[in-house]
Amino acid sequence: MNKSNISRTAPGESRDRLATIGIIGLGPRAETLLASLLVLDDVEVGAVCDLSDKAVAKILSVFKRHKRRQPKVFKDYHQLLSLPEVDAVLVPTSWNSHLPIAIDALEAGKYAAIEVGGASSLDELWRLVHACERTKGRCMMLENCCYGRNELMVLNMVRQGLFGEIVHCAGGYEHDLRDGLALQGEAGSERAVHNRYRNADLYPTHQLGPIAKLLRINRGNRFLSLTSTASKSRGLQDYARRAAGRDVAFAMGDVVTTVITCAGGETIALTHSVSLPRPYSRNGRVQGTRGIWLEDANGIYIDGVSP
Amino acid sequence: MNKSNISRTAPGESRDRLATIGIIGLGPRAETLLASLLVLDDVEVGAVCDLSDKAVAKILSVFKRHKRRQPKVFKDYHQLLSLPEVDAVLVPTSWNSHLPIAIDALEAGKYAAIEVGGASSLDELWRLVHACERTKGRCMMLENCCYGRNELMVLNMVRQGLFGEIVHCAGGYEHDLRDGLALQGEAGSERAVHNRYRNADLYPTHQLGPIAKLLRINRGNRFLSLTSTASKSRGLQDYARRAAGRDVAFAMGDVVTTVITCAGGETIALTHSVSLPRPYSRNGRVQGTRGIWLEDANGIYIDGVSP
Repeated sequence: MNKSNISRTAPGESRDRLATIGIIGLGPRAETLLASLLVLDDVEVGAVCDLSDKAVAKILSVFKRHKRRQPKVFKDYHQLLSLPEVDAVLVPTSWNSHLPIAIDALEAGKYAAIEVGGASSLDELWRLVHACERTKGRCMMLENCCYGRNELMVLNMVRQGLFGEIVHCAGGYEHDLRDGLALQGEAGSERAVHNRYRNADLYPTHQLGPIAKLLRINRGNRFLSLTSTASKSRGLQDYARRAAGRDVAFAMGDVVTTVITCAGGETIALTHSVSLPRPYSRNGRVQGTRGIWLEDANGIYIDGVSP
Repeated sequence: MNKSNISRTAPGESRDRLATIGIIGLGPRAETLLASLLVLDDVEVGAVCDLSDKAVAKILSVFKRHKRRQPKVFKDYHQLLSLPEVDAVLVPTSWNSHLPIAIDALEAGKYAAIEVGGASSLDELWRLVHACERTKGRCMMLENCCYGRNELMVLNMVRQGLFGEIVHCAGGYEHDLRDGLALQGEAGSERAVHNRYRNADLYPTHQLGPIAKLLRINRGNRFLSLTSTASKSRGLQDYARRAAGRDVAFAMGDVVTTVITCAGGETIALTHSVSLPRPYSRNGRVQGTRGIWLEDANGIYIDGVSP
């Protein structure tokens, strides 16, 4: 696309109309995002897109229930992207498609916002970076956990200096997803295929988003290196065998431990664990010269203050 | 020493006398070990050794208080090792001397038992291995945490299969030692010098001992590889500055994260953190296909049992 076609509103530029949002991909995450958009008085959802008539009907019923103007509806997202009135596009599609669609949105002169989790390859990420640079566009990852109550509380405490100088953080995506992942099979959710054929920390952003904020990553600090180590893979296979009598192999290690170093000298330990039984946790830890926060202990200890 | 001089009692061999123990190094750990020995009715502490008259006087007062026969006293541990009646030697000396002394004990035909923490170099460890092989002797590391209440409870649960197949364990030595380590200076405890001049997980055995037991390390399983990553070093310097107005640099990173892989496919994550404020914790975690134990959460979750 020729750059002259791009008519993105610059940050801070005044507007005499509502910002118009398009949503591509109308699954459960789209419903959650729409609920947030419907309480804002300076945006309007002007267009939606999905291949599924059922998903479209469901999202339209939300507009109706809230007495909002019905959006334009598309099955081909390129048609949505060609609408001149759309300023920004939310892309809550599957892990497998949201990056290419975001890149197309940037090329069409739109702001793009993708759901987590991130990308599945370095190549995908470079294509996104190059698209942003080429179009001078912006893509935001909608990492909702950055706005969690714990995470905002701790960020505020860090900014106030209560933990002193931060030297180490930890976090995890510890979520028992066996029911969804072990029993989906090849034809199942687009997400499950990753657990079956890849061995990696597939979903680091919930914990890494908030940690990146408090360590000021890309705001003076940056990630330098990482090691990533997977345990054997047993959880999903064991579950599929017991729950459905199926014998399926999975590539993904049950627990993947990743250790990151930062330019500021901080370290970050991440845990990915979605195939073993346990209550949900983001396993947060922030440790500094004057104190510590530990999510799983539900505890904060401040030097000279705590008993 | 000639092997023919070695008269070690073989395991299971019957004895017509008490086992005679020597203790080399009479600091606080010796007092704790002696308290355990004094309640056993098949051992006798026959000899003790320390360079310090004060330490000797203190330990002798314990024997007197318990109405036990006073042991032989030495300043030179080689003299203690030459006693034919001594079967085994406990070596609760500093980190810097217990391995060479244990090697000398093996060479003298004695069983040896060293306090934690372990060794400070691979070379030291190889010398110990070679001494054991050469003398057909045995050296035991007195890792007390293997016998902690939590650790024995979890080991028992693991053996009963409550957690299913174990895939991941974690542990830490998270101990606020700033007061001792930051203010000791060069002439201080022999331990503090390690924190000042080395950057490593200096003390992994408290957590790794119990984990090694439950993963059957060297009983069919073994450690394969590790990565170890240190954060910046700030805690001790900050503390020394605030508490004593001293500006001292320390080499040791405040948080050292080590990830170990095992032949059985299990992973182990270790945390070493002795220079930042927090309550004491060994930060235990045992995670299997059917459940999890988390020390810091004071929690156990068993699949199909826990709510």
